[in-house]
Amino acid sequence: MRVKDVGEFGIIDLFRRLVPLVGTDVLVESGDDAAALEPGRGPLLFAVDALVEGVHFDLSYDPWESVGFKALASNLSDLAAMGGCSRSYAVVALGVREDTELEDLKVLQEGVLRCGNENGCVLVGGDLVTSPGGHFVALAVLGMMDEGAHPLTRRGSRAGDLILVTGTLGDAYLGRLYLKKGGDRDNPCARRHLFPQPRLREGAVASELRASAAIDVSDGFLRDLGHICEESGLGAEVFLDRLPLSREALELAENLGEDPYRAALAGGEDYELVVTAPSGVAEEICRLTGAQVVGEMVRGSGIQVYDEKGRLYRPDSTGYEHLR
Amino acid sequence: MRVKDVGEFGIIDLFRRLVPLVGTDVLVESGDDAAALEPGRGPLLFAVDALVEGVHFDLSYDPWESVGFKALASNLSDLAAMGGCSRSYAVVALGVREDTELEDLKVLQEGVLRCGNENGCVLVGGDLVTSPGGHFVALAVLGMMDEGAHPLTRRGSRAGDLILVTGTLGDAYLGRLYLKKGGDRDNPCARRHLFPQPRLREGAVASELRASAAIDVSDGFLRDLGHICEESGLGAEVFLDRLPLSREALELAENLGEDPYRAALAGGEDYELVVTAPSGVAEEICRLTGAQVVGEMVRGSGIQVYDEKGRLYRPDSTGYEHLR
Repeated sequence: MRVKDVGEFGIIDLFRRLVPLVGTDVLVESGDDAAALEPGRGPLLFAVDALVEGVHFDLSYDPWESVGFKALASNLSDLAAMGGCSRSYAVVALGVREDTELEDLKVLQEGVLRCGNENGCVLVGGDLVTSPGGHFVALAVLGMMDEGAHPLTRRGSRAGDLILVTGTLGDAYLGRLYLKKGGDRDNPCARRHLFPQPRLREGAVASELRASAAIDVSDGFLRDLGHICEESGLGAEVFLDRLPLSREALELAENLGEDPYRAALAGGEDYELVVTAPSGVAEEICRLTGAQVVGEMVRGSGIQVYDEKGRLYRPDSTGYEHLR
Repeated sequence: MRVKDVGEFGIIDLFRRLVPLVGTDVLVESGDDAAALEPGRGPLLFAVDALVEGVHFDLSYDPWESVGFKALASNLSDLAAMGGCSRSYAVVALGVREDTELEDLKVLQEGVLRCGNENGCVLVGGDLVTSPGGHFVALAVLGMMDEGAHPLTRRGSRAGDLILVTGTLGDAYLGRLYLKKGGDRDNPCARRHLFPQPRLREGAVASELRASAAIDVSDGFLRDLGHICEESGLGAEVFLDRLPLSREALELAENLGEDPYRAALAGGEDYELVVTAPSGVAEEICRLTGAQVVGEMVRGSGIQVYDEKGRLYRPDSTGYEHLR
């Protein structure tokens, strides 16, 4: 059965039944004009992200479940980069073609819900519209921080602060290339592309220990670190041999004939956090989260990357930009 | 200059400069991973709405400013239908074609900001993405109700409650037809289509006086009243001669050869509120907001519309449905 067979209200009803409503914090549930929620006592985080077919996902190799999962994961990753939250809620606007199978939309919705369940985020509402030009998923999240919590910005970094990265870089980019060439979805790098894990806990640790700045890696490590540099009025030095690369990424890069360092620096969609902090705090964050030091913030502007022999390394591209 | 000439980050920078950041309640402003806001003490309202080119707006007669204005107004109208709020914030995800003029996007953004300024809503963030298949505007709003405020749902109505409508019905539908035929934008009905006014104050009055249910008229009066009926497990009787029609709508309907009653019942996009309340409360709401009684909730199901002679009136269509 397709979208045009049941009409908008039919689909909204169908989706409403799929949304599990949990928790006494939801006063008015999905399906009314707006969701109503119990207020929190700490700062509120509010963000939106949109994924567009043919730009951010490709249904020839991105399964519907991944599209839904990533739409929420990329938003939760933004909350993680602000210091995480104790409760979070999402609303999703879905643009669909008329010939789309309802079954596919259900699977997309299940992807959103699975990401929500894994990360304590409740889907409380949405809008469903026809979009003749292609599918899109626009998702907004509301995060409630603990009372007294400090939102982490991009602008608090100081010269001498160490630069940390949670997890490994480049996997998602290589996984996408692999899928595009017909690779299987169970490959660890492919899974990093399809089902990224927002680093909410790591973000909360960084905020609690008063890291100086944070951002999540969506456009590519250098590009995103570049935002911290610009907003903080600083430069950065990054050491290639310190970049956290997974064994799977190194293997896959070799198979694909790709430079794993370029993938790590510029690949994007890792949804790891880049955090800056004074050295004592940085050590503690690394101890608690497994993050690794990859460089240091310095006076000036721009990012210098050094290879293992201390020579300047110049990657071709510093990040993925949607519109160029 | 077009979108493709400056790239995504260029546009985001351009837009960031356009967003006026006001109020001490905004802890972290637009441009970071998420906005951070001071929490409120009352219930939080959270909603999302998307407008798609060729479905919800047509750039051949809808100016860019109206697209932005309506994207926010339709969301604020949802908050109004929940009982209004004392503070509100918005995030917007904008899907744009590569050949779109930056000047047009600025005008769209100005439309969002004008609606925000007129209604006390602060734009705190956004996402800008390419959308090769056509433009879309997905906008989410967060409303903070006063401490102890009661969100109005669609399900609290009781048999015997009166049905009220704020403002007049049918103007926006007729205004759109008029614009489509080349009519001028200064026509009062055209303005109702282009720049609808969310009834936040009226919603707050209804919530404060403990109305039993409310919804905003987006899909059409009968369709939206139908949601209250379904959710409350009731039917409704509506009296045609009580429907609030503006003089301008009656004139325009005559010029266009349209049935003004059909426009009022099924036209949609009025963004007025339909409120139900026991008669004493209803009278007070009418007195304070100028709303008018148009019918009564009854046991059973479905909506009966009676003409001035007490005969059953059957409009062809009960509302606008996007996907049929």
